[in-house]
Amino acid sequence: MILARVEGSVVATKKNPKMTGSKLLLVRPVSVSAATDQELKSGSGTLIATDALGAGEGDVVLIVQGSSARLAVDDKDSPVDAVVIGIVDTVDVQRRELYKAK
Amino acid sequence: MILARVEGSVVATKKNPKMTGSKLLLVRPVSVSAATDQELKSGSGTLIATDALGAGEGDVVLIVQGSSARLAVDDKDSPVDAVVIGIVDTVDVQRRELYKAK
Amino acid sequence: MILARVEGSVVATKKNPKMTGSKLLLVRPVSVSAATDQELKSGSGTLIATDALGAGEGDVVLIVQGSSARLAVDDKDSPVDAVVIGIVDTVDVQRRELYKAK
Amino acid sequence: MILARVEGSVVATKKNPKMTGSKLLLVRPVSVSAATDQELKSGSGTLIATDALGAGEGDVVLIVQGSSARLAVDDKDSPVDAVVIGIVDTVDVQRRELYKAK
Amino acid sequence: MILARVEGSVVATKKNPKMTGSKLLLVRPVSVSAATDQELKSGSGTLIATDALGAGEGDVVLIVQGSSARLAVDDKDSPVDAVVIGIVDTVDVQRRELYKAK
Repeated sequence: MILARVEGSVVATKKNPKMTGSKLLLVRPVSVSAATDQELKSGSGTLIATDALGAGEGDVVLIVQGSSARLAVDDKDSPVDAVVIGIVDTVDVQRRELYKAK
Repeated sequence: MILARVEGSVVATKKNPKMTGSKLLLVRPVSVSAATDQELKSGSGTLIATDALGAGEGDVVLIVQGSSARLAVDDKDSPVDAVVIGIVDTVDVQRRELYKAK
Repeated sequence: MILARVEGSVVATKKNPKMTGSKLLLVRPVSVSAATDQELKSGSGTLIATDALGAGEGDVVLIVQGSSARLAVDDKDSPVDAVVIGIVDTVDVQRRELYKAK
Repeated sequence: MILARVEGSVVATKKNPKMTGSKLLLVRPVSVSAATDQELKSGSGTLIATDALGAGEGDVVLIVQGSSARLAVDDKDSPVDAVVIGIVDTVDVQRRELYKAK
Repeated sequence: MILARVEGSVVATKKNPKMTGSKLLLVRPVSVSAATDQELKSGSGTLIATDALGAGEGDVVLIVQGSSARLAVDDKDSPVDAVVIGIVDTVDVQRRELYKAK
């Protein structure tokens, strides 16, 4: 899984009939900086993930990708490959709290 | 899923018999720029995705990849790994409308 | 799917018993150049894909990857993750013909 | 599979109901340095993997990704795509012991 | 599939009970150099792949990844995502023999 920060959302009214009504979030993967191990560094790319947990802008979330993403939604035949499976409370690295949700 | 912009199309008459008649679009993945969070930045690579929604050149589309792509087409045995599952109307980031379809 | 150019071939006599007799092609992924949108740019890496369509050196082909690749071969239990599913005739970008097979 | 070093952990109380109780580890992929072949070089990104083997901070672990990750957990319907499947004792390269667990 | 060179091996005594007894090889992906098309260029990262063919250090091997890797081992429930499926004899590019096993 990867960590990502929610930055926005996407609307597509013309879509595949098997797409569920879940919200489409625009998220940016984040990693713990290799240089300092003390901050979440934003990646250069963005992904679209469906969300049924109610994540909001600025939240750090846990994203599952690939075929496992389908197991995270109610309909296993939903053609999705990235889903929010957790809203992160804390990230601890080397016993320091690097991130804490507000 | 990823966002991508439709740039063109590909024709292959000699192909696998299980390939459906769907159009093969040439698409370029786009991401929200990390620097400004105000524009869609084009990636350096391109992909080929099948499309049954009628996306045209210049449209921003939602692409599903991997095994989930097969669930987006009528024939689950179709050997495809990237399919257009939505034509994007709007992309909102930090409550600003970053993209709107014409 | 991705576009790739056939550059050569690989022979492995000591191989997994489930491997079919298909030819193993060495292919280099190509993308439409982001700078000019007028040429196919070669990638820095190479892949090995099985081929049953008879693609030859210099041909631009369509490659499917991952679990979908297995659906493109006759034996679904074949342990392959990249297969040629089309020999490309033309690539059109912004209504210009960027590539045409000889 | 890839090698990774355990750097920390993540807590998410609001999560998908199918997520098991396994600990969520923050790991950083490591590779053998191409320049010297004598050290494990840390990657720039980090992943989140579930762990049922009891790996601790600093351990080098073996990670399986994708659909195969689900086979490594007790519940095949768990929506995970990265799981610790081994705690590494030694890494040998060109017959030299490059890493040994303490 | 990808080509890779065997560089070493990994031992993990504390591992997932579904892991088979296959040897864990440390391999480095190689590609045909885009500049010259005359040599195998080593990648910067390394992977771990299981092997039942008896590949040794220095051998160039064919690696299958993802869910297809499971079809290459005797036990389909083995949680592996990279397996050696061939020991390469020759790599030919543009009708020149670029690599030949010793």
